[in-house]
Amino acid sequence: MALIVTGTIGIDSVYTPAGHAEKVLGGSATYFAVAASFLGKVRLVAAVGGDFPTEFSRLLKSYKAIDTKGLEVRPNSKTFAWGGKYKPDMNSRDTLFTELGVLAEAPPAVPASFADSKFVFLANTHPAVQAQLLSSFPKRRLAVADTMDLWINTARPQLYNLLRQIDGLVLNYDEAELFTGKKNPVTAARHILAEFTQGKKGLQFVVVKKGEHGCLLIHKEGIAALPAYPAEKVIDPTGAGDTFAGGFMGHLATIAGSRPITLDLLRKAAATGTVMASFNIEAFSLNRLRTLKKPEILKRVKEFAKMVRV
Amino acid sequence: MALIVTGTIGIDSVYTPAGHAEKVLGGSATYFAVAASFLGKVRLVAAVGGDFPTEFSRLLKSYKAIDTKGLEVRPNSKTFAWGGKYKPDMNSRDTLFTELGVLAEAPPAVPASFADSKFVFLANTHPAVQAQLLSSFPKRRLAVADTMDLWINTARPQLYNLLRQIDGLVLNYDEAELFTGKKNPVTAARHILAEFTQGKKGLQFVVVKKGEHGCLLIHKEGIAALPAYPAEKVIDPTGAGDTFAGGFMGHLATIAGSRPITLDLLRKAAATGTVMASFNIEAFSLNRLRTLKKPEILKRVKEFAKMVRV
Repeated sequence: MALIVTGTIGIDSVYTPAGHAEKVLGGSATYFAVAASFLGKVRLVAAVGGDFPTEFSRLLKSYKAIDTKGLEVRPNSKTFAWGGKYKPDMNSRDTLFTELGVLAEAPPAVPASFADSKFVFLANTHPAVQAQLLSSFPKRRLAVADTMDLWINTARPQLYNLLRQIDGLVLNYDEAELFTGKKNPVTAARHILAEFTQGKKGLQFVVVKKGEHGCLLIHKEGIAALPAYPAEKVIDPTGAGDTFAGGFMGHLATIAGSRPITLDLLRKAAATGTVMASFNIEAFSLNRLRTLKKPEILKRVKEFAKMVRV
Repeated sequence: MALIVTGTIGIDSVYTPAGHAEKVLGGSATYFAVAASFLGKVRLVAAVGGDFPTEFSRLLKSYKAIDTKGLEVRPNSKTFAWGGKYKPDMNSRDTLFTELGVLAEAPPAVPASFADSKFVFLANTHPAVQAQLLSSFPKRRLAVADTMDLWINTARPQLYNLLRQIDGLVLNYDEAELFTGKKNPVTAARHILAEFTQGKKGLQFVVVKKGEHGCLLIHKEGIAALPAYPAEKVIDPTGAGDTFAGGFMGHLATIAGSRPITLDLLRKAAATGTVMASFNIEAFSLNRLRTLKKPEILKRVKEFAKMVRV
C-alpha cells in the first residue's frame, strides 16, 4: 500500500571519530526514502533549492522505487544545509551550523496524485508543518511522526495538536524524558499514550529510539524491546533514525496490506528498521545504502532474529 | 547438575534516588545463590565474620535449594561491608566505604563434598583468589567468572591466568573497553576471545553487561543480543549483575544436563538471567527475591521472549 514520506533533503557536512564527509547528500526524507525503497515503493515530498547538485537529483531519481514527483526545486532558494560533529562515543553530536534555506519557506507542495497515500511518515520538522502536510492525506491508514527536542521546547501546543491526529510517534530516549519529565522511557511513553489514545482511535504506539542500545516500542497492547544490531563498523550515525523509520514503515506498508496493524507486526517492522539503520551507519551519507542489495538485508534480518530469539 | 558459586556475602548500605537501605544483606554470592535457587540447587562458598547477623544466616539457610555447607563463619573477623550511592540515572554509583573484613583474609574453604561441582561461577573477587577457588573443582564442566575494573587495573597478569582456565567471562560494558582499549563492545569481546580461545578449549564466550540496556553474548559461533526487561519500577540496581549471573548459570545447570552448551542454550540462559535481574531491582537488598514465586518468573520469561520475538 502506498507509502509516503515528507521531510527534508539536505546537504550535510559530518565529522565523526572515523573521518569526515563534506557537502554530501543527507536529510531525513532522503534517508527514509532510500531505506524504504528496499522494501517497496515510496513517495517523496521535500523541497530543495536551485543550488541542489544535479548528481544528488540524479541519484534520487535513479531509484525506481522512489516516486520523486513531490521533489520540489525552488530555483531562487537554497537547499537546507547542516553540519555536525559527533562526540567520541558517537552517541551524541554538536551542530556546527544550520542553514535553513527552503525550510524557512512554505512547506513543499503535495502532488494531487499522492493524496491517496495510505502509510504516511512525517519526518522531523515543525509540528505545525507536519500537521499541515498530514491534512493532504485524507485516505491514510497509518500516520507516524518523528519529532525532536527543539519542537518539544518551542512548539509544544502544535506538537500536542499533531499528536491528536497521528497513530504513532517516534522519538529519542532523551526526548521522551524531556517531553514528559519521566526518566524511565517506558513510563514516559505510557504517559504520552495515556494522553493521546482514545480506545482504538488516537495514538496507538510510541517508539523510543536508544541509538546503539536499540529501541522500545510501547503499544497499548504491550511492549516490544529490541537491541540494536551489534555493529562493529560504525563510521557515521547520521540518518540512523531515519533509515530505521524507513525500514519500519516500508515493512508495514509492504506487509500489512489490509491486515490489522498488530503489535506483532510492528515488532517485526522495528526489526527491519533496526537492520536498515545498522547498514546505514557503516559509511558516510548514503554510501552504504547505495551499494546495499536486498539479499544482504534479508540475511541480516534473519541473523538479527536469531540473535534475539529466546 | 551441581552448581556452585564462590563470592562475597556482605552487609550493604545503599542510597538510590528511590530511597535507602542500611546494613542490609548483600554480596555477590548472596544475590547469585538466591537467584539461582529458583532454578535448581546451588552450593554457596563464602566467608562472613562473627558480626554476621543471625537473621541473615537464618534467611540464607531457609532456602532449601541453597547448600550453605560452604558458608564459613569466622568468629574473630568482620563481615565484608559496603556502602554505595547511585547517581540520579541509576546507571553508575559512587562507593561510600568498603570494609574488607574477611575479604582481606584467606579465601573461604571449599567443603570436600563440593569438589564434584560441575557448573562453577566465580563471582567477582581478586582473580588470584578466583583461580585458587577454581582449582577446588577438578570435575567442572563449565566455569564462568565475573571481574571488575579494579582487577583489570591492578591484577592484569592474574586475570590473564584466570582467563586461560575458564569457559566464560562476564563483565560490564565499560570494563570490556578498559580491558581491551576497544570502544565497541563486540570488538572488545572478540578481542578477549581471540586471546584466550584455543579451538574447543579455552574461553568460549564473553557476556558484556550493559545495565538498563541489556547484554551482549559474544560466542565463538555467533552473537546474542538482548535488551534488558523494560522495567518501570527501579528501586535499587545493587545485585543486578549477580542475579543475572544466578539466573544464567542456574538455567544452564538445570537445563544443560550432559547436552552441549550451545549458543542457543546460552541465549536462553541469558534471558532467564535478564528476568531475574529485572525482579531484583524492584526493591532494596533481597526484598523482592524473598517474595518472588516461580510462576512469576516463568510468566515474565514468556513475556520477555514475546517482547523480543521478530
